[in-house]
Amino acid sequence: MTYTQLYSQITKKRSFLCVGLDSDRSLLPAHLRHHSDALFLFNKEIIDATASYAVAYKPNTAFYEAEGANGWKQLEDTVLYIRKHHPDIFIIADAKRGDIGNTAQRYAKAFFEEMDVDAITLSPYMGMDAIEPFLHYKNKWAIILALTSNDTASDFELQPLANGQLLYEAIIEKCRQRGTKEQLMFVVGATRPEKLAEIRKLVPDHFLLVPGVGAQGGSVAEVAKYGMNTSCGLLVNVSRDVIYAGEGEDFAQFSKKRAAEICKEMSCWL
Amino acid sequence: MTYTQLYSQITKKRSFLCVGLDSDRSLLPAHLRHHSDALFLFNKEIIDATASYAVAYKPNTAFYEAEGANGWKQLEDTVLYIRKHHPDIFIIADAKRGDIGNTAQRYAKAFFEEMDVDAITLSPYMGMDAIEPFLHYKNKWAIILALTSNDTASDFELQPLANGQLLYEAIIEKCRQRGTKEQLMFVVGATRPEKLAEIRKLVPDHFLLVPGVGAQGGSVAEVAKYGMNTSCGLLVNVSRDVIYAGEGEDFAQFSKKRAAEICKEMSCWL
Repeated sequence: MTYTQLYSQITKKRSFLCVGLDSDRSLLPAHLRHHSDALFLFNKEIIDATASYAVAYKPNTAFYEAEGANGWKQLEDTVLYIRKHHPDIFIIADAKRGDIGNTAQRYAKAFFEEMDVDAITLSPYMGMDAIEPFLHYKNKWAIILALTSNDTASDFELQPLANGQLLYEAIIEKCRQRGTKEQLMFVVGATRPEKLAEIRKLVPDHFLLVPGVGAQGGSVAEVAKYGMNTSCGLLVNVSRDVIYAGEGEDFAQFSKKRAAEICKEMSCWL
Repeated sequence: MTYTQLYSQITKKRSFLCVGLDSDRSLLPAHLRHHSDALFLFNKEIIDATASYAVAYKPNTAFYEAEGANGWKQLEDTVLYIRKHHPDIFIIADAKRGDIGNTAQRYAKAFFEEMDVDAITLSPYMGMDAIEPFLHYKNKWAIILALTSNDTASDFELQPLANGQLLYEAIIEKCRQRGTKEQLMFVVGATRPEKLAEIRKLVPDHFLLVPGVGAQGGSVAEVAKYGMNTSCGLLVNVSRDVIYAGEGEDFAQFSKKRAAEICKEMSCWL
C-alpha cells in the first residue's frame, strides 16, 4: 500500500485506528479456547466486526509463535483472511525483528513475500544494516522502534548521547536520511504525548505508529493534538481494549462497539 | 543447562564451538533443495557430523520463518532432533526478539516452553522490560545483543552517551545488575577483538556469544586471547564456514572436517 492509499483509507473511514491482534488463547472466549485454530477463529470474528472502523490490523508475532508451527499457520491464515475479505486494510506484522545482512533479507522474505503484509516493525539496535534490506521492497514499509510506550524506555531509548541528542532522536535522524515517508514509519508510544510534538519536528511527514492508548493509559485526543500532520500521519493502535471487550459467544459485538467508539473520537480530528 | 554443565561440556570436548544453523534452501546441496523439509534434512546431517566438535547449535529463526509455518515446523524438528540424539548440546534460538510485558512472556513461552531451547538472543533496545520475563526460567538463558559484528554497529551501539559510556557498555552494565552469570550472556562480535578485553572487565564471569569468525573475518585466536576467562566464558559461533563447507551429497563430511579443524584450534586454548 502507498502513502496516498493509506491516507485515502483514513479519510474514507474517518479513522486512524489500528487494531492489535495480540490474540492469547488463555484470554479468548471459552467457546473458542479449545479449538486447535482458536487464534484464527477469534481473529476472523474480530476482523469482520471491526473492519469498518479500522484502517490497519497489527498481529503481534509473539502470540502466534507461542503456539509453535500451528500458531504461525494461524498468523498466515489471519493475513490471508484480511487480504481476501478486507483488501483495503493495511497489515502490520508486529515482529520487532532486527538482524543484519543475509538474515535481514530472510526476514524481509518471510514477511513481505511469504506472508505479504504491508509493514513490519523493526528494532534499530544493530544499525542501518538491520533496516536497509526492507527498503528494497516497493510499497512495503519498515516501522522503526523509536520511543516505545513502556516504563523502561528510559533505560536506553531516552538516554542522552554525548552530542546532545537522545538515543531515539539519533535513530529517527539516521533512518530518515535513508528512507522516505513512503518507506518508513516510526513507533512512538502514546504514554509520552509531549514527545510527539518534538518528534513531529524531526519527521513532519512520516506516519507514526502509536501504541499505548487504552490499557496502557494514553489518549486519542492527546496523540492527535501533538502528533497529527496534514496527511493524518498517525496509526493509533489499540489491542486489548478492543479485542477483549467481550467475553461470551457474542464477544465480537463488544469489540465492534468499542472500535466504533474509538473511531468516533478519531473522526473529530479528521 | 547450567553454567557448570556448559563448562563441563567445553572441557570434555575441548571446544567452545557453536555451529550456526543459518540454513538457507537456496544454498543447500542440490539433492536436498527440493524436499519440502530440506532445512531439517540438511540440519540433521550437519548435526550428526559435527556434534563431537560443537558444544552448541544456534539456529537463526529468520531462515526458518522465510519458509512460513513449514519452516517453523522444521525449526521445531531440528530442536527436537538435537534434544533426542545429542542431549548434552546447548541450543540457542538466535531470534533477537525484543518486546515488553505480556508480549515478552509469550516469546519466552514460545522458545523456552514450546520449543525448549536453552537460550534465546534478545535485543535490549526497549530496556529491561524486554529482558526480565526471560529471567524467570530456571536453567534458561537470555543472550543480550551488546556489540555486534556488523559495520553499522557504529550507528548506535558504539555511540558515546553523555555519561561517557558507550551505549553497549551501558547495556551490559544495566543487564548485569539484573541477571547473574547463570542467566545472562552477551553477544560480542569477533570483528572487534580489542573490545573483548574491555568487555571482560565489565563482565569477567559471564559467557560471551561471539559471532563473526570465519566468513566475517574474525579469528579464534584473537577471540580466545582477549575474551577467555577461567571458565572459558566463550561460545564462538561459526555458521557458513562450517555448514556450507561441502556442496555434494557428502556435504556433511566437509562440515565435519571444518568443525574438527576449528575445534583443534580451540583445544590449544583450553
